[in-house]
Amino acid sequence: MPSGKILVAQGGGPTAVINQSLVGVVLEARRFRQVTRVYGALHGVRGIINEDFVDLTQETSHNLEMVAATPSSALGSTRDKPDAAYCEQIFEVLRAHEIEHFFYIGGNDSSDTVRIVSDRAKAAGYPLRCIHIPKTIDNDLVGSDHTPGFPSAARFVAQAFAGANLDNASLPGVYVGVVMGRHAGFLTAASALGKKFPDDGPHLIYLPERVFSLESFLADVKAAYAQHGRCVIAVSEGIHDASGEAIASLLAKEVERDAHGNVQLSGTGALADLLCDEIKAKLGIKRVRGDTFGYLQRSFIGCVSDVDQREAREVGEKAVQFAMWGDRCGSVAIKRTGYYSADYELLPLDAVAGKTRTMEDEFITASGTGVTDAFRMYLRPLLGSGMPDAFRLRPAPVAKILKK
Amino acid sequence: MPSGKILVAQGGGPTAVINQSLVGVVLEARRFRQVTRVYGALHGVRGIINEDFVDLTQETSHNLEMVAATPSSALGSTRDKPDAAYCEQIFEVLRAHEIEHFFYIGGNDSSDTVRIVSDRAKAAGYPLRCIHIPKTIDNDLVGSDHTPGFPSAARFVAQAFAGANLDNASLPGVYVGVVMGRHAGFLTAASALGKKFPDDGPHLIYLPERVFSLESFLADVKAAYAQHGRCVIAVSEGIHDASGEAIASLLAKEVERDAHGNVQLSGTGALADLLCDEIKAKLGIKRVRGDTFGYLQRSFIGCVSDVDQREAREVGEKAVQFAMWGDRCGSVAIKRTGYYSADYELLPLDAVAGKTRTMEDEFITASGTGVTDAFRMYLRPLLGSGMPDAFRLRPAPVAKILKK
Repeated sequence: MPSGKILVAQGGGPTAVINQSLVGVVLEARRFRQVTRVYGALHGVRGIINEDFVDLTQETSHNLEMVAATPSSALGSTRDKPDAAYCEQIFEVLRAHEIEHFFYIGGNDSSDTVRIVSDRAKAAGYPLRCIHIPKTIDNDLVGSDHTPGFPSAARFVAQAFAGANLDNASLPGVYVGVVMGRHAGFLTAASALGKKFPDDGPHLIYLPERVFSLESFLADVKAAYAQHGRCVIAVSEGIHDASGEAIASLLAKEVERDAHGNVQLSGTGALADLLCDEIKAKLGIKRVRGDTFGYLQRSFIGCVSDVDQREAREVGEKAVQFAMWGDRCGSVAIKRTGYYSADYELLPLDAVAGKTRTMEDEFITASGTGVTDAFRMYLRPLLGSGMPDAFRLRPAPVAKILKK
Repeated sequence: MPSGKILVAQGGGPTAVINQSLVGVVLEARRFRQVTRVYGALHGVRGIINEDFVDLTQETSHNLEMVAATPSSALGSTRDKPDAAYCEQIFEVLRAHEIEHFFYIGGNDSSDTVRIVSDRAKAAGYPLRCIHIPKTIDNDLVGSDHTPGFPSAARFVAQAFAGANLDNASLPGVYVGVVMGRHAGFLTAASALGKKFPDDGPHLIYLPERVFSLESFLADVKAAYAQHGRCVIAVSEGIHDASGEAIASLLAKEVERDAHGNVQLSGTGALADLLCDEIKAKLGIKRVRGDTFGYLQRSFIGCVSDVDQREAREVGEKAVQFAMWGDRCGSVAIKRTGYYSADYELLPLDAVAGKTRTMEDEFITASGTGVTDAFRMYLRPLLGSGMPDAFRLRPAPVAKILKK
């Protein structure tokens, strides 16, 4: 069994619970006698090649618990996507510091990094155990029932749409909310969990798993608006046409053709604004508002699923156990074992690395603009306890006197 | 003392606690024997002239309590700004239904409506008691320490910036968050309450109380970015140049000159995107992201201040008491009586109607891009209990081996 030093790092976009996994690794590793040091790399793989390490063995368990409950990556993150040469550098640093366990908390790209580093160590005959610990609000890792971080972001999106629906009912019009998720629509679909009464929004949901047509979109909005006198719409930032080109870039091109310069596609309100402009121009509806949930949905402090917190902690703990007791490399996956209960398994890195999961067909209605009860059943327990609820006054109309 | 029927309605943009005030009126009114009916008008003053009334006397107190805890206006709202003729119509409907008490929950415009209707009743010798019940997330009503609805929206903004700061620290760059508030910067200033450590963002805050200059803005951002390696910025949607022209329209004009058509100014991400474009183009910073908090900040379900809930309930209750026990017209105001404790008083409608409060000078730093401790002391107790907190790992660097 390898011993000595272990290293943990965090990569990619932060989540509300990614520090739970970090702390799960640190506290569990500190229980093993053969572990002399638990290092953290600052800003992911970049921190490894720069040797920017902190000694987490010297942090109190109390402060670690407080950090665990804090969203975003406490060690810092990176968008670096290591190639073979970069992985070689990572390996050289690990070897120089005699690190024999490497835990990387991240999404698809991170799992690929872990796979390459693991292969490199094997080829060099260096005893390195590499574990990928899943996190991503996109829920797009294959092999897992779901990914840590997704449930809390989904809860934010569901709560946001529950509120936006109430706002829209109070001052009727069209509301477009743009949600993160370039290839997988899970997070956008979570908007449906904010719905309580049959006439509540979101009335229409647009996912990257279905081809988006501006013509059908406008027809859908027109029909929903005619039915409800208002319309709440959830749109994934990743919607695209039949050729796979993102709607954000298609619409933005018009702006570019106007010589306005470089219009940003992600991390901006452009898609929501452009869809709103289309609705106003083509349907003649006056009150049309668009919000882009942006970074709020992944970093808002104080909106978290307790189920997600628990599981994010456990994938960190289990990662250490798989490495220490099982002496294995791999990617930790969540397996659903009851309604609702979960267990963890270690998948081969090849089964996860660089692959992308999208929403299963059974989760999307035939119309393509809604989600099924199967999806609601899938997501509901993940949102955790204490979901806020919306109540209405019940109708008791008063007879008119003047306008009989 | 007038008796019989009372009417309550909600106007303007909804808040997280406006239904607390509604339920405060209904439950308190139902305690008075002389009150035979409590009517609610649907969609504010428009519901009055359309005689769209519901009988709230027939609603259970249990469901009223559940509605009280639900954000947005349960009776529906309106953006109608009644003129004299409109107020005349309101009065005619009130007279036809023998309504002798009118409670209107709203902001500046609503207080003006109440004033005109009250004057009209007096002139006609009709015994109508009119009470304006304050609500606005902008906190821009004169005569009150603060307005119900503002504390919960401020809490959302503080939590959002606390999270955005953590996100930005994890993946450094520039982050611009645009907050509601066309004339008053209170809500934007609330972003400062998300700050814990000295180097936390928001590093810069731009308020409508100070003249905005794009040149100074870029210089400020450049300096903050140089100091922290990142920069989090809170911007009010109402920032304007020396002539009073909104920056949103100044920048948007360029787009209009490009013949792109009608670019929306409010309820869009345009201002954030345009400021981000300027930062990227002029300062050469690569990672620049903008979010517009939009409707999330006023309608998000599940982010509410318990102090705000209690006070919103009480202004509704007190409104009924002022009308019933005091036989008075006016506007209910919150008075701070301790740190923290509040009481309520009834101001003359003339003292509130159509007036706008902006941030006091003592709340803004000399630089114009920050808030003072006086503001922090003012706002902190209003945010309520259970504010989420952010924790950090403490530094314990590991000695480098390769890159000594």
